[in-house]
Amino acid sequence: MKSDIQIAQEAKMIHIREVAQTVGIEEEDLEFYGKYKAKLSDDVWEKVKDKPDGKLVLVTAINPTPAGEGKTTTTVGLGQAMAKLNKKAIIALREPSLGPCFGIKGGAAGGGYAQVIPMEDLNLHFTGDFHAITSANNLLAALLDNHIQQGNELGIDPRQVVWKRCEDMNDRNLRNVVIGLGNKMDGMVREDHFVITVASEIMAILCLSDNLKDLKERLGRIIVAYNFKGDPVTAEELHATGAMAALLKDAIKPNMIQTLEHTPALVHGGPFANIAHGCNSVRATKTALKLADITITEAGFGADLGAEKFFDIKCRQAGLKPDAVVLVATVRALKYNGGVAKSDLGEENLEALARGIVNLEKHIENIQKYDVPVIVTLNSFVTDTDAENEYIRKFCEERGCEFALSEVWEKGGEGGIALAEKVLETLETKESHFHPLYEDDMSLKAKIETIAREIYGARGVIYEPAAEKQLAKIEGMGFGKLPVCMAKNQYSLSDDAKKLGRPTDFDIHIREVYVSAGAGFVVALTGAIMTMPGLPKVPAANSIDVTDEGNIIGLF
Amino acid sequence: MKSDIQIAQEAKMIHIREVAQTVGIEEEDLEFYGKYKAKLSDDVWEKVKDKPDGKLVLVTAINPTPAGEGKTTTTVGLGQAMAKLNKKAIIALREPSLGPCFGIKGGAAGGGYAQVIPMEDLNLHFTGDFHAITSANNLLAALLDNHIQQGNELGIDPRQVVWKRCEDMNDRNLRNVVIGLGNKMDGMVREDHFVITVASEIMAILCLSDNLKDLKERLGRIIVAYNFKGDPVTAEELHATGAMAALLKDAIKPNMIQTLEHTPALVHGGPFANIAHGCNSVRATKTALKLADITITEAGFGADLGAEKFFDIKCRQAGLKPDAVVLVATVRALKYNGGVAKSDLGEENLEALARGIVNLEKHIENIQKYDVPVIVTLNSFVTDTDAENEYIRKFCEERGCEFALSEVWEKGGEGGIALAEKVLETLETKESHFHPLYEDDMSLKAKIETIAREIYGARGVIYEPAAEKQLAKIEGMGFGKLPVCMAKNQYSLSDDAKKLGRPTDFDIHIREVYVSAGAGFVVALTGAIMTMPGLPKVPAANSIDVTDEGNIIGLF
Repeated sequence: MKSDIQIAQEAKMIHIREVAQTVGIEEEDLEFYGKYKAKLSDDVWEKVKDKPDGKLVLVTAINPTPAGEGKTTTTVGLGQAMAKLNKKAIIALREPSLGPCFGIKGGAAGGGYAQVIPMEDLNLHFTGDFHAITSANNLLAALLDNHIQQGNELGIDPRQVVWKRCEDMNDRNLRNVVIGLGNKMDGMVREDHFVITVASEIMAILCLSDNLKDLKERLGRIIVAYNFKGDPVTAEELHATGAMAALLKDAIKPNMIQTLEHTPALVHGGPFANIAHGCNSVRATKTALKLADITITEAGFGADLGAEKFFDIKCRQAGLKPDAVVLVATVRALKYNGGVAKSDLGEENLEALARGIVNLEKHIENIQKYDVPVIVTLNSFVTDTDAENEYIRKFCEERGCEFALSEVWEKGGEGGIALAEKVLETLETKESHFHPLYEDDMSLKAKIETIAREIYGARGVIYEPAAEKQLAKIEGMGFGKLPVCMAKNQYSLSDDAKKLGRPTDFDIHIREVYVSAGAGFVVALTGAIMTMPGLPKVPAANSIDVTDEGNIIGLF
Repeated sequence: MKSDIQIAQEAKMIHIREVAQTVGIEEEDLEFYGKYKAKLSDDVWEKVKDKPDGKLVLVTAINPTPAGEGKTTTTVGLGQAMAKLNKKAIIALREPSLGPCFGIKGGAAGGGYAQVIPMEDLNLHFTGDFHAITSANNLLAALLDNHIQQGNELGIDPRQVVWKRCEDMNDRNLRNVVIGLGNKMDGMVREDHFVITVASEIMAILCLSDNLKDLKERLGRIIVAYNFKGDPVTAEELHATGAMAALLKDAIKPNMIQTLEHTPALVHGGPFANIAHGCNSVRATKTALKLADITITEAGFGADLGAEKFFDIKCRQAGLKPDAVVLVATVRALKYNGGVAKSDLGEENLEALARGIVNLEKHIENIQKYDVPVIVTLNSFVTDTDAENEYIRKFCEERGCEFALSEVWEKGGEGGIALAEKVLETLETKESHFHPLYEDDMSLKAKIETIAREIYGARGVIYEPAAEKQLAKIEGMGFGKLPVCMAKNQYSLSDDAKKLGRPTDFDIHIREVYVSAGAGFVVALTGAIMTMPGLPKVPAANSIDVTDEGNIIGLF
């Protein structure tokens, strides 16, 4: 069996100019990065902005398991299948982070015969967007510490600096550091922390900004620290806005690449799905809606985090109205949710399936709360049996969902035709009445409790004293109307990663709350969230190489 | 008077495809980064490698002063002038570092009507080469600390880690840090240091590598630490080589942009000129020699550092034979060397000129020691008088040098015709018999002493005890045949920045010596060398901005 990178490298790419032409973009509006990647110039939006929007389809999934779900693979395959049915579709994905490529997992470009390419470029530097974000993030940090060093006119309390440095690398040693050692000219000593670039608020800002003007306003609102009086200090007060925006002027332009079958894909931005909202850029999604009849996008982690934030943060802020949701599951993952060990997932087990399918059930119910039609799809594995597939089909249909098997991993677009047909049927016959889960005017606590009860199925919410205090402070600062971004483990509907299936009788524990004033949401943390990953004992980096001719090997 | 960025932004650029065509490169061999930047594919070298080399001209300067010399401006203007004389010329420059743009100085793309463009792109992310180097550098650091964390099989002594993290940002607070704080999963606590990306050994390696194969061999040889027995531990032992090379596979390809007059410029790599060799990439220079009749390149700082390292490190390692050297001075800088205060440099002062011209004299003598013909040029300022210019002309001609005034800042290529004609005349009539200053077989001490005596004019060399020990260890490790890379302040021929002119009766003090085994040189430090700059009280970042339409302002 061929590996993903083998399939990707054997693919015959066409010039990105030709891919862009299929959705009406002329060469003059493309900024090429080699032959197979391009940024869309600002003129593209100006030319298409008055066109009607196409349909917006979100691909999301059950809670992730070690068995793998294949959300990106399904997204890409569905786009390829739409093209087979002569539909003008664009795929709108997140960019993968560089750091994790050298750790455990490889890239994030789909898999099998449903991939976006060139996968090596996408997984390494791509068009430099993440490097631009790293630079802007660290420029702000340098300006902040320099302000303290040069007299600290704003009275920044070095114990209350909330802006962290970042790096697009898995580097556990940078989680907790002390900086500014040496002598007087080497800065003020203080504790600092590095996060991985995708966890930078600038990543979330870039993804939520409509344009450069909006970007600058959001950058300026970033709270970098509190002063000795306890008042927030912003990036604008450090005069950092313009220089950060200058660093991001190209990064804000959507990137176009192609699938293995030359379907256009806008791959742009990639914020964390826990401390941020986990969706690709608003700008890419909005542009795709103007260019194509159907835009297929995805959101990070399972639907409890990804879809909820897509709806309640991205769609709310950007005024988007999703028309349908594809909910991805696998027989194996559902059996895993039913208590089967990873090594036994290859065997038919209808009892375990029945125990685990409650996870899928809850996500179906959740999406229906937003009044958006749901299509459930099973990303097929060779070990799945007909009885298992039929059980799930019946289960879904009884709950008012369409259902389709997907074989895009093995067969590319051809393997996604059944799913694409169900999606098209849904778009034609079922109307979306999308609305967010909660209103802006509700208190932050009410928002948190609504998400906990309605989406997670929790009994209630327990706040640690620090979180209570922070909530009061954030509302006092005037940020009470922002949506809430829940930082929760992705493996369980609860805040305990071990509780699989559909847990009941549990509380959600809010440990810490802070505001991402530039991104425009309040982050509520349940338990410890890792914002700087580490490397494993044998990192993937050990086997990555490049031949003397320039071909990457070992990236998977 | 227009600012550099105004002139640059008003320039009518032509598509880089057309620029490349003038030196015989087809579109298929270009990897575009937008319309005005391109990388040369690996095929370019394969196609031209058997052609005869053109002429190689190095532009260097007297010791830098606050009055400014205009070395890059002269390099660019000379290239533009060659085109006016219908000569096929390519300019081979270093890429500027991002960090300093936000500090005191702005960009490094020449000035006035002798600039390479697009200057905003060049000064910001350009084609991402420096970001790739930052990533490779920090991947190696992460792999190193992860090795220690995961059992430390190689027995790395955390007190003897010599590999530093890096960032392309001026950030004094990162000069001295403690990393790995927190608990057991957050790494081993140790002291660490960040350098600016241009100070990374990977930058020097990239610039000295002939091709990917050479790059990988050099990366593998990097010494990252010493083990508890005191033996070196290399990047190859950490299995880091392949992944680093994968990150650098595009960065090693030369970048082509254009001057204001559309002369092709290969702008590639930019190592420090103190702890590294301060020259653009070997690959760019070698490619330029095949493509053009005349390649004009420059080296960092004054000739005592830049030209010496260009000759003794870059030309030695790459087998290059320079045909002529253009030595840039200004009347103002020579008067400054003669003791005139910066505020009084506008007034004619032949006595001060006579006192200060000894700095120029020493650099002329130095270059003549390499048996390469010298052309002295004065980068003209409006305050220069005829008497001053004539004095310098006579002085140079008496020493066997050609002399020409240069007005490229004000007039572009037209203002460089007199200089270009002198260069052409020199190339036709004077033969270069280039040879390095010292032989590989000499001891490291003998090499250091040769440079100190012959180039700096020192009486002798004094070694601190630590340096003595390090020299012995480095020779014991088998690195005695490498050339020496002197890290010295750039302002004086001596190691005391305040000694202007042509100091005599001084010793050079060697404080520390270490080997850059991948780059292939031994660094000898005289005094403290800053490898991580800071920001000033009012950073340039404060006035940099981007308009809502995407135009950068305030970058200078």
